[in-house]
Amino acid sequence: MSLLDSLAGSATPGTLYGIGVGPGDVRLLTLRAVGLVRSVDVVAFFAKRGQQGNARRIVDPLVPADRTELRLEYPVTEELPADGLPYQQQIGAFYRDSQERLAGLLKAGASVGLLAEGDPFFYGSFMHMWRRLAPLFPVEVVPGVTGMSGCWTRAGTPITWGDDTLTVLPGTLPEADLTARLKATDAAVIMKVGRNLAKVRRAVESAGVMSRAVYVERGTMPGERIQPLSQCTDQRGPYFGMVLIPGNGRQI
Amino acid sequence: MSLLDSLAGSATPGTLYGIGVGPGDVRLLTLRAVGLVRSVDVVAFFAKRGQQGNARRIVDPLVPADRTELRLEYPVTEELPADGLPYQQQIGAFYRDSQERLAGLLKAGASVGLLAEGDPFFYGSFMHMWRRLAPLFPVEVVPGVTGMSGCWTRAGTPITWGDDTLTVLPGTLPEADLTARLKATDAAVIMKVGRNLAKVRRAVESAGVMSRAVYVERGTMPGERIQPLSQCTDQRGPYFGMVLIPGNGRQI
Repeated sequence: MSLLDSLAGSATPGTLYGIGVGPGDVRLLTLRAVGLVRSVDVVAFFAKRGQQGNARRIVDPLVPADRTELRLEYPVTEELPADGLPYQQQIGAFYRDSQERLAGLLKAGASVGLLAEGDPFFYGSFMHMWRRLAPLFPVEVVPGVTGMSGCWTRAGTPITWGDDTLTVLPGTLPEADLTARLKATDAAVIMKVGRNLAKVRRAVESAGVMSRAVYVERGTMPGERIQPLSQCTDQRGPYFGMVLIPGNGRQI
Repeated sequence: MSLLDSLAGSATPGTLYGIGVGPGDVRLLTLRAVGLVRSVDVVAFFAKRGQQGNARRIVDPLVPADRTELRLEYPVTEELPADGLPYQQQIGAFYRDSQERLAGLLKAGASVGLLAEGDPFFYGSFMHMWRRLAPLFPVEVVPGVTGMSGCWTRAGTPITWGDDTLTVLPGTLPEADLTARLKATDAAVIMKVGRNLAKVRRAVESAGVMSRAVYVERGTMPGERIQPLSQCTDQRGPYFGMVLIPGNGRQI
């Protein structure tokens, strides 16, 4: 009997759980996240075409073999610029379709845990589902350890001391904008470095903070790579590449 | 027999664990943090004078009654300005004394878990111990869910969308500086609001972002309070008060 058959006639809608699964190591899930991954009726997750999906991989040791899963596969990821109309049309249609599939399960009374890498309310696709479904169904969001926390921990670099300011920047910003913002902050994290790596390196150099800059790829995950940005000469890296500029505020 | 007696003659120094205990709810500790809190020889923590200590309170359900504990009590907290010499002298002496007590345990072979609210490498006292002890002893840092993640989750406000920039600001900054930085970012988190609440409110108003500003006190903890900043008329709040300015970037 399928899950939907077994729930047939259920009067109460299911709860949507936004489950932060942390930066990559399964031991960095919270107790609440683990409890939910183990107990929800459906484990749902986003994945790139042809890949397992990073969030799903992280929780692999926790998901029973007979659990119902809902795989939501992006039609495009980095092939198209995210600020262009073709990307937004394709992703928009995909999000609407995903929303309908999730709503169908919730209406039938299933509890659904939608996995979110890092923290669900800090970038990421979960929020686009939350925005649509939170007005209609019971929702609980479980915060997670962010990817950037995982990266600065593995790099052994405290990010902010005392009264340091921290700026989190998407690597997609124009070079001049990145440079200006790096100059104006004590500490910085540059996310989504990926294909922007060469531009990010130029901005870090122009801002005069190269000596503190650390490049982290796949922090806390298999294939982890950590090195001074000055020694990383790649022209582009994976989507999850990150650059850290640790602050050097009050050290008592 | 005391712990140090039982370890007498131990050849191998103990490991210092920096354990991120998350924003306040014990269910938001990671699996790794829970495992360590339950298994280290000594649970160490900072606390304000006369108080249990927030980090220690968070892990209370996990610490066995017979566990050795090391309470490190601040000589001062908010009584003196943190950028002044008297504060830095008193805190400096306290950190040196704390370092010696921790080093004594580690030398004797005890494993020590030093609790850190939120994430150990994101502000906080742990880093001042890490800075002194990491060159001398084996150290493992366990990242945690930050206080700000706990707050934006409980407030139901995703903090960054798409290519939003996020700026994290200490409420201790001068008003004009706060205002300028709030104007220049998409999303913001103002930490350490406490006695700076009235100033922070003026800066948020001047920056023109009051309509998005949310005030959160004790997020995920007992006594939690969440309201639009415009409706919070207090002149000061507790140290852990936080103001969130959610971004409103690309929502597909």
